[in-house]
Amino acid sequence: MKPEKRLHLGAFMRPVSLHTGAWRYPGGYPDANFNFQHLKSFALKLEAAKFDAFFMADHLAVLNMPIEALRRSHTVTSFEPFTLLSALASVTERIGLVATASTTFEQPYHIARRFASLDHISGGRAGWNIVTTSNPDAARNFGLDDHVEHGERYTRALEFFDVVTGLWDSFADDAFIRDVESGLFFDPDRLHVLDHAGPELKVRGPLNIARPPQGWPVIVQAGQSEPGRQLAAETAEVVFCSPRDLAAGRALYADIKGRLAAVGREPGALKILPAAFVVIGDTVEEARAKRLALDSLVHYESAIASLSIALGHDASGFEPDAPLPPIPQTNASKTGRAQVLKLAEEEGLTVRQLAQRHGGYAGLAFVGTVETVAGEMAAWLWEEGSDGFNVVFPYLPQGLDDVVEKLVPELQRRGLFRSDYEGTTLREHLGLSRPQNRFFA
Amino acid sequence: MKPEKRLHLGAFMRPVSLHTGAWRYPGGYPDANFNFQHLKSFALKLEAAKFDAFFMADHLAVLNMPIEALRRSHTVTSFEPFTLLSALASVTERIGLVATASTTFEQPYHIARRFASLDHISGGRAGWNIVTTSNPDAARNFGLDDHVEHGERYTRALEFFDVVTGLWDSFADDAFIRDVESGLFFDPDRLHVLDHAGPELKVRGPLNIARPPQGWPVIVQAGQSEPGRQLAAETAEVVFCSPRDLAAGRALYADIKGRLAAVGREPGALKILPAAFVVIGDTVEEARAKRLALDSLVHYESAIASLSIALGHDASGFEPDAPLPPIPQTNASKTGRAQVLKLAEEEGLTVRQLAQRHGGYAGLAFVGTVETVAGEMAAWLWEEGSDGFNVVFPYLPQGLDDVVEKLVPELQRRGLFRSDYEGTTLREHLGLSRPQNRFFA
Repeated sequence: MKPEKRLHLGAFMRPVSLHTGAWRYPGGYPDANFNFQHLKSFALKLEAAKFDAFFMADHLAVLNMPIEALRRSHTVTSFEPFTLLSALASVTERIGLVATASTTFEQPYHIARRFASLDHISGGRAGWNIVTTSNPDAARNFGLDDHVEHGERYTRALEFFDVVTGLWDSFADDAFIRDVESGLFFDPDRLHVLDHAGPELKVRGPLNIARPPQGWPVIVQAGQSEPGRQLAAETAEVVFCSPRDLAAGRALYADIKGRLAAVGREPGALKILPAAFVVIGDTVEEARAKRLALDSLVHYESAIASLSIALGHDASGFEPDAPLPPIPQTNASKTGRAQVLKLAEEEGLTVRQLAQRHGGYAGLAFVGTVETVAGEMAAWLWEEGSDGFNVVFPYLPQGLDDVVEKLVPELQRRGLFRSDYEGTTLREHLGLSRPQNRFFA
Repeated sequence: MKPEKRLHLGAFMRPVSLHTGAWRYPGGYPDANFNFQHLKSFALKLEAAKFDAFFMADHLAVLNMPIEALRRSHTVTSFEPFTLLSALASVTERIGLVATASTTFEQPYHIARRFASLDHISGGRAGWNIVTTSNPDAARNFGLDDHVEHGERYTRALEFFDVVTGLWDSFADDAFIRDVESGLFFDPDRLHVLDHAGPELKVRGPLNIARPPQGWPVIVQAGQSEPGRQLAAETAEVVFCSPRDLAAGRALYADIKGRLAAVGREPGALKILPAAFVVIGDTVEEARAKRLALDSLVHYESAIASLSIALGHDASGFEPDAPLPPIPQTNASKTGRAQVLKLAEEEGLTVRQLAQRHGGYAGLAFVGTVETVAGEMAAWLWEEGSDGFNVVFPYLPQGLDDVVEKLVPELQRRGLFRSDYEGTTLREHLGLSRPQNRFFA
């Protein structure tokens, strides 16, 4: 008998969707970037469907893109994730809340306080998506002319993680006595002063927050570079990644899980949840047609400019509604180019469709009926491509409704997803153990 | 006929109260520092009473006090204010939400984003209490060995304010077109890139958040030093202060309001709201007895040590239950000493009572019946001592219940306080105008 194996599902959210054309999709909420009621309704629906977590992406700058694309993109602005998730914490009860925060442009004392507070407010549902922020425009919003170099960002990230987790361990779980009779509020012997002084950071401590209900909020990490994978193996409990297909997913899964033993961790201590763009139709054809309709809302001139860069060849003179003509080899990134060409070939896309796909959302996608999508998800789970997914909704609210009302019941029917929460914390949803306090038994 | 003049009331909150003995007071919530449900109930009661704002104090370190006092103090830890207020934003509808954030240990891009987000989430109810953070222990949590010098902190604060408000003005109020038909999401001509480069800060912008509903969240400021007053006159819309009596309050009020004309501001553009510790009883004697009972919960040995410092004289050998004996003049701060001696004399306190008052809460207090307290508040309003108060509750929930259930109805009966909100934003509650965008008409 197979051991019971179930998917973990996060919702990887931007208020209007990650797809740049989504705000124009019929029934969408173009104002969702700053309309909290929409976000609240999404979170409540995901919680009713027993999702593990609501995961908020982030940028620390207005995205750098050509003005013709920028003015057409809803991705230019939205709520700061930490603020949003704190507001969602008080109107939800069980779903995990994962916020992105940068180790490059933040201070560990602030980060430790905020995530510990969110964990207390939510009753143990906080997660921290550690990012090192690769966007050079972000650096310019934080006093730097040049971006912080890749290796230095990862060195700092590891030290930052050590400091934040050390601050979370400032108080033993039982430090707060609150004995009204004797007047003793806490036991100073159960308080540790971190006194960290390292190459990048100097932080005295202690944190002025009781240890979080989860011990530590769940650590999420997304880097797929060599130092990113190693940082994940050493620190992460959830890896958010973007393999393009199952073969790539299996290779990444084996690589990251394989690094765990060397750092003394069990394979189950880290869950790998790739981003998956999910489009549901009553038939596979209908799902594909929905996706093409969504892609068609991406501005063509901007998309073709961006496709030209990816191809390393000016595509603006190509016939838009014909197949992609043969393109001579250039010095452009071979991997990027190969992916684009594969996309065009597999689905028989025209130049226009290819450009709009590339400009809309070109990552791993499950496009089909609840049966085909559930089958694909099961394959990833059983073939060790992933432990579940961070679902990207093509458009909102309809794309989310399709998943929670149609796909999730199918996954539940197949025993691939929980029918109810079994625990109360995000750690419990994910099957992760509560970390020991490093300073106190 | 007198023009209509009404009090503005904020609640200056710590989860258990600012008074160090409050967690032991009968009926209190010793666990409130990390129990969100208590905070939610306080906010809902204050909103039902039509308070202008819920104002969250903050510290960026565990408070530095002798261990015997520290282990007895509930003030050592609590929610990070921004997280807490974001969580309260989604469970309240009208009350203002003022969070403290430091210009010394924060980055303006983060502050601008979070307060703008809170303003969007709350529908225009955010306020930013600008502090420069004078606690040297905070510096050690942010990589600095020594505290940042006072003058430099204020120079940075002013520049920080300019950058944050400039970032809030990144988008014109009408920048977001969201025209589904044409595909234009926003008008790039209505976007301003700040490109700030000053002596302390370098921030490119634009902010990746739409202009806040209030234009800018309400600016609160608390410094009472010379540079603090000047910063308030130049930037603040609410001044939070701690005059010890009406005479001191009138002098401060006249001074700060007097500085406004020189910087081109109307007197009504800034409201002065001192902290006021309010204890309500059925009789004045009962109120005083409640306060003495509360004070008696402060640890005597710690309190006498702290009193000795204030007096510049070792008081530990004094008879605790007798009046304060005459004390020879020393080099201790004359103002601090005079205040303590005045306190002892006015209320005929014993050494023990004086020490515990000093260690509990020794600022401006209104202790009496709803009639006497309403009368005192009216005097401050009419004699230009203040535009209202930031109420400090001696203990929770009872001290808050006494104010919202007993004092507020009396103030309303006298026409001194609103019976319902007249607007929806914090600016509207406070009678403050919405700032023009500095870059766009």
